[in-house]
Formats: sequence, C-alpha cells, structure tokens
Amino acid sequence: MSTIAMPAPDQAILNRKEEVVAALRAALPAELVISDPAETHAYECDALTAYRCPPLAVVLPRTTAEVAAAMTVCHAHGIPVVPRGAGTSLAGGALPTADSVIISTLRLRGYLEIDTDNRFIRVQTGVTNLSVSGELDPHGFFYAPDPSSQLACTIAGNIAMNSGGAHCLKYGVTTNNLMGATVVLTTGEVIELGGTEMGPEGLDLLGLICGSEGQLGIVTEAVLRILPKPEGARPVLIGYDSAEVAGECVAKIIRSGVIPVAIEYMDDVVVRAVEDFVHAGYPTCTAVLIVEVEGSPDEIDHQIALIREIADTLNPVEFREARNGDEAMAIWKGRKSAFGAMGRINDYMCLDGTVPVSQLPYTLRRIGELSREHGLEVGNVFHAGDGNMHPLILFNANTPGDLERAEAFGADILRLCVEVGGCLTGEHGVGVEKRDLMTVQYTDDDLSIQMAVKDVFDPDWLLNPAKVFPLQSSAAHRSAEAR
Amino acid sequence: MSTIAMPAPDQAILNRKEEVVAALRAALPAELVISDPAETHAYECDALTAYRCPPLAVVLPRTTAEVAAAMTVCHAHGIPVVPRGAGTSLAGGALPTADSVIISTLRLRGYLEIDTDNRFIRVQTGVTNLSVSGELDPHGFFYAPDPSSQLACTIAGNIAMNSGGAHCLKYGVTTNNLMGATVVLTTGEVIELGGTEMGPEGLDLLGLICGSEGQLGIVTEAVLRILPKPEGARPVLIGYDSAEVAGECVAKIIRSGVIPVAIEYMDDVVVRAVEDFVHAGYPTCTAVLIVEVEGSPDEIDHQIALIREIADTLNPVEFREARNGDEAMAIWKGRKSAFGAMGRINDYMCLDGTVPVSQLPYTLRRIGELSREHGLEVGNVFHAGDGNMHPLILFNANTPGDLERAEAFGADILRLCVEVGGCLTGEHGVGVEKRDLMTVQYTDDDLSIQMAVKDVFDPDWLLNPAKVFPLQSSAAHRSAEAR
Repeated sequence: MSTIAMPAPDQAILNRKEEVVAALRAALPAELVISDPAETHAYECDALTAYRCPPLAVVLPRTTAEVAAAMTVCHAHGIPVVPRGAGTSLAGGALPTADSVIISTLRLRGYLEIDTDNRFIRVQTGVTNLSVSGELDPHGFFYAPDPSSQLACTIAGNIAMNSGGAHCLKYGVTTNNLMGATVVLTTGEVIELGGTEMGPEGLDLLGLICGSEGQLGIVTEAVLRILPKPEGARPVLIGYDSAEVAGECVAKIIRSGVIPVAIEYMDDVVVRAVEDFVHAGYPTCTAVLIVEVEGSPDEIDHQIALIREIADTLNPVEFREARNGDEAMAIWKGRKSAFGAMGRINDYMCLDGTVPVSQLPYTLRRIGELSREHGLEVGNVFHAGDGNMHPLILFNANTPGDLERAEAFGADILRLCVEVGGCLTGEHGVGVEKRDLMTVQYTDDDLSIQMAVKDVFDPDWLLNPAKVFPLQSSAAHRSAEAR
Repeated sequence: MSTIAMPAPDQAILNRKEEVVAALRAALPAELVISDPAETHAYECDALTAYRCPPLAVVLPRTTAEVAAAMTVCHAHGIPVVPRGAGTSLAGGALPTADSVIISTLRLRGYLEIDTDNRFIRVQTGVTNLSVSGELDPHGFFYAPDPSSQLACTIAGNIAMNSGGAHCLKYGVTTNNLMGATVVLTTGEVIELGGTEMGPEGLDLLGLICGSEGQLGIVTEAVLRILPKPEGARPVLIGYDSAEVAGECVAKIIRSGVIPVAIEYMDDVVVRAVEDFVHAGYPTCTAVLIVEVEGSPDEIDHQIALIREIADTLNPVEFREARNGDEAMAIWKGRKSAFGAMGRINDYMCLDGTVPVSQLPYTLRRIGELSREHGLEVGNVFHAGDGNMHPLILFNANTPGDLERAEAFGADILRLCVEVGGCLTGEHGVGVEKRDLMTVQYTDDDLSIQMAVKDVFDPDWLLNPAKVFPLQSSAAHRSAEAR
C-alpha cells in the first residue's frame, strides 16, 4: 500500500548473503549477527510501519570496536548499512532495504563517566534517552532533550535525528546539548569529534554529524551536556475560542522574554478526542495551551504572573493554574494521552513541520482548508513555542487509497510550512518520508553541496541508502560515484 | 621578527596583478577595487599586528552580487581570496598574503528585517556587532554574543570565528544564535543555509559554516536570533586569596544551576595592573571574580542570594554587591580596562585556550610554573564560567628573541589546555597563530576529513590560504588538488 518507492535490491548482493553473514560472524562474536528471517523480523520496519522490508542481516555490536569491525566487513563487501537505534523513527529513518545490513546500537549500553563539575555525561549511544536522566537523577542533574519516545529511543537515534521534545523551547534540541561524539566511518575508521568542551577549533564536524540521519557514520559514544534539575515546575492551562488568538498568545509570551520550558497546543479535534478518552476536564474551546515554567518558587510565581497578564489581554475562555502536583498532572494528562486518543478514532499519520511562531494562526487555518479539500480530518497537537507542528491526519489503513490521500495531504501541509518560511521537519527527520520533498526546501545547488559533503564521509553511498536526499538525485549521485 | 612561516607568494600571480585588478574593475564598480599600496596599507594586518603583508588588491563590495562577482573573477584567475571583516582577529585570521585579494565585508551595511514575533533580525554581515543591538534597542531586544571588540567587529567576522563574549555563558556563542546565512562560494555561486527557523532538515551546513574562518565561503547576509532585553542586571565582586578556591567557587556556581550572564576572573597580576591604571578599588588578593546575573528584581535577588551562599562557604576576602548603577559600573570598570592596563606594563600576547571548569585551578597553577620556566610574566583575565582562558603573556617587542619566547610559552599553555581536556581556542579562532598546533588536538584522520570537507567547498584551496590547517598539510593538500 506504500506510495514511497524504494530502489530494487542489488541481486548480486542478495546472492552473496551467506558469504557476507559468514564474514560478519568471522569478524565479530557469531551470536551478535542474526540473519534468520524469524529473528530479523523485528527489524523490518521502524515506527513508520506502513513501510517494511526484511534486511540481509542484523548486527548487534557492544563496543565501538565491534561497530568498526562490522562496518569494515560491509565496506569491503560493498554492502549498504542501515544504522538503527530503537527503531522509533516516524519518518522511516531506520527502514532497511533487502540488500542492507542493519547495525543496531541497542547493545551499546554503557555509562562511562559523569562529571557534574564540568556538566557532562559520557555514554555509549545505545542507552535510552530517559535512562540518561535516570542515571543523573541521584546527582541532581538531567539531560534536557525529551522526545515523546524517550522511554524507548536511544541517544544514537537522538543524535542522528537531532531530536527535540517539549523541553526544547528552553533548553534547545540535541545539537545544543551534544559536546562530543565518537564516530565510526564507513571504512571502519574511528574519529573523535568535539569533546568535553563546547566548540573546538577547525570545521564543526560535530554539528554536521548531529541530524545527519546515519548518512555520514555511526555515533557509538557521546558526551552530553547535563543541567542541574530545577527547583520546581508548574503548568498553566489557557483556553481560547480562536486559533488565531491562541497563536497570538504564544507569540506574545515568546516576545515578552519569559522562556517557558514548554508551550503545547491542542486544537478542538484533539481536545474532544482527549476528553472522550481520559476525561482530562479540559474546557470546550477551539484551542488549549499548556504553558509550563520552571525555577525557584519566586521565579515560577513571577513568570506565571507575566503569562497571566499576557493571556488576560486576549480574553481566554479559561486560565487554570496548577496549585499542586495533582493539578499539574491533571493538566498534563490530556496532552500526554493525545496521540493515543487520536489513535482510538482512526489510523493517523503524524507530520512534523516547523513554521515561524507568527505564522501559526495562518498555517492552522490553511491546514483546516486543506483538510476539507482532501476530505480527511486532521488534529493539531504540537510544540507551539518553537513553531514545531504535529498535524495528525486521520485515515483508514484498510480503505484502499486512503493512505495515498493522507500522504498527499501531508505533502501539501509540509509545502505550506516551507511556503510560510518554515521547514519540513522539526524533530522527526527526513528519512524516506520527506526525501522527495527536499526539493521544496532546497535548490539543486543547495542539495548538490550537501551530497558532496556526504561523498567525503561515504564515497560509495553505502550508509542508510535511499533516505534524506531525493531518490533520483541520490541514485544518480551514487552511480556517479561508482563510475 | 615573526616565527610563523607563511608560504612564498606565487610569482606568476604577482606578475599578473594589473590583469587581475583590471578584471575586478571590469566586473565591479571600479571605485570598489583598491590596489595602490598607500590605500591597501590598512589591510596589511589584523589585530595580530606582529604579522603583516600587503595584499594584491582589496575589494569593498556592497551587495551579495558584488561579492559573488569578485569571487568569480578571483576563481577564474586562480587568485587566493582573504575574507575580512573589521580586521580585529587576534589570531591572524584576516592576514593577507602578497598574492591574495582581500574581499572586505565592511560595506555590507544594510539592516534588512526585524521580526520580534519570530525573534530574528536579518542583516548584511558588514554591520558591527554592537550596532545590531543598537538597532534592536528601540524594540526592546538585543543580540547576545558580545566579543570585547564589539564596537568594531562585524557579524561576518563573528560568524567566521564563532565569536563569544562575556554574555555567552548564558546565551551561547555565535553558532547558538545564528539561524540563517547567505554564503558566496569560491565559484561565485550563492547558497542559502538555514533560514528563519532553527535546524532545518538535511546536513547542517549552517553549523559547518559557522566558525569555519573563511575556509568555505563568504557569508554576506545573516539571520540572527534576537532576545528580549532583561529587566535588569547586577554584578557582584568576590575576592579570594587562592586561585584554587576561586576556581572552586566558579565550579560550584555552575553546578548549582544558577546561570549568571558572566563569570569573569582576574588574577593578582591583572588586579595590580588595573589598580595602578584606573584605581577601581579592587581588593588586594589572589583572585577577583565578577559574577553578573540578570532578570527581574526578584530573580536577581534570588540568584545573588544563592551565589552569596556558595561564595561564603569558601571564605572570601570580600563579597561586594552593587547596590546601584554607579556601583555596578565601578565593579566592571577594572575588568573593562584590564587589557589596556596590561598594555601599559609591556607588549602582551593574548591567548585563548579553553579548559573544563574543574581544571581551572590546576591550569592556573601550571601557567604560573610555565611563566617561571620561560622567564616571562603572565596575567590571567578571562571568562571563567565557560573555562575560556585569556592568559596575557608580557614581553618586549623590541627585545630580540622576546616574541619567540612568548610564542613558545603560548604554545606550551595551549598544549596544556588540550592536555587537561580543553581546546586551543574559545573565541579567537585558529588563524595563522594556532595553525600548527592543530595536530595537538586532532589526529591525522580527524584533520584529513576536515580538509576533505574543505575540498567540497573550495577544491582549489583558494580561500583564506595558509590558515586553520597545519601549513604542511594544507600545502600538501593544495598541491594534491592541483594535480
């Protein structure tokens, strides 16, 4: 039922499967290499489940040296490599091809160093995002980026996708919190980028690796910036009867200089779904904002007073401040169950475009118009403070043609994001999903130079094939390299 | 008297000077091209004045198209190009060679767009750092990075060097505040990176350009993140009788979760020089810290109370809180005149290494030992909060051998920074000064891949020659490219 084309696998590689698997088993402890279709089944897709394909084999290394050994074998045999964290990508970033070997970071599970004086933690990248903060908790510190999948997703995947999360409004995304990385290149060579200090001299290859979606190498160890836990946090809920006015409130808060840790937005479709599901007690209105601030009790009071002042100038339907932990949880309850609530109504496709904050009202209105044009319902629940939208397009996977309509609708929304000065992705990455839309954002010259940079790291284009770059350009580029 | 070798100029290019100048004058309004040695005199050096060389010619374009025209001519004639902002580089980043054309950004002076809703300003990059905040002032906003040279230095230079400043502890350096850039490549091609949104998809070439010291292209327009001005700010002065204890105080403040906008450190050599010069009223002690916090009056009180609590556990000689604007100015007066005060004693060389905050005490002790070994006095005045040290080595430029001794001492200090887990530069860049020390920080593999990335942007190695990369490697690389 897929509408996204993947290149035909290289038959010559498929014929050499036994040889490749044997070479991997010779270079690594044999039990780290699996190739039986029953065992590799779990690796056929990531969280973009509409697309799946069994890989040639899966390698589960435990050390940088084992990753390097696997890369060396694949490189020597000309086998494409698909790096994979926990497989939570919503954009098909870890989707294998039949002729590729998956190198998983899941067993790279070590905590190597915690240094609170210099505020960093050094980890192997297979540790999950949430467990890093868990590890830091006894020291009074945390790691800021917090994607929704943080219980499962790995630091390797976070670095590959430059992941964000609700807290990123205040603390930045992965690239703002990554200090160093150990990277295994396609040849098996290992390089160290950055370190325990921000921004060393020379070309900033660390920034380049972050968000490169497995196109340049596999990050096996990372030095992450850590932050002292705030004294406390408190959310408020603000309801408005107009998307425009809610958007205006977000822009005014941002402009005022308060930096909340989160400004989340839910539209009426999502609020209704949430109420039917978890009875969060949200007001009946067009737009619900959840704004959370952090700090000392005084700082929290001060910030909330400012937010209330701003919100009140715009006549909210409701302004509800959490007076204790229970009330705070009640405010967050609906937001945290929003995706589940939407999933009860129908299948949905979760998009990830970003727009300038001032364009939120216009963008929301246009998404409503596009929803009517495409005949598919859409709910909006997203990180409003940084303009990172997550329209959820409802469709029925069992209705022929519905996925295709949803994809066409999604592409229109992403084009709209670029049109108003935004971009195709906030935190999910390009993967296979938005690959062919890259030309909407970039000129041929822009893409050529990006691909020329990939050439430096991956001259044979073996890493994470058929992703990020438009299929046609990357195929042309790859065959040019092969010449 | 220089100890840093520069490659011999290409005689064939020198012979073609008239032809190149004529081609530039044909492609651009003739008055934008100067080549008379009397007129190009001001471009012979930057703020690393020990090194100077007259360029072949200087071009002063006013638009991206004019920069592109100049680059196209230079590329067609195989002429090296030295990009130059205000020429305030302390590392020789804008030092010309005799066979190179300087392309200055000084006349790119336009303010193109201010958008407070989406918190950005779009400028031509020849505007000075301070004038950007001046332009934003009526709107209640400012631009955070604030290098000491901010009155003179340009945004183009800030981007090239990834400049910092005292406020960077809280707000990050240039790369954390740069959202988009228009870049003219060596061929004259123009690409757009980033935009008005943070972190678009694909490879992060914007991050790569930032801090690339003119090795990849010339940035002619930039979109900068702007911030609402804080309600107020207040400094405190803390004196300690031990460098170790002062360093401990810095580490404890950072660890506590207070984020001051600045933590500045001055040692006894600097404090004495400052007292002799401006009579700032600093206490007589081994280390003076100036810690400044920002926010609402409540936030300021809260933060200063925390800082006082931390400082008091370490028995300060003095803890002085500014009670009004005059007292605040008095606290800052000495710090702001520190470089001038040191310059009254002797010539000095200003270094720029960065170390983990916890290594400050050890590093300061070792610098003292190295000072005795090399027989040259040193003063330390620096941004302690982020470990960005600025040792000032005193020497006499008129004493034969003194500069060489100062340079040897400086190299030892920078090696020390790398040894303790830091890096060669915080904000001044590599330029020619630290070019040959890059091998201290990086392996051959690390440098090879950086140079391969440069190849993509500048295959003929025409941009800012003989800088950033070790002279030997870049010469070898350049001749390999020429083959």
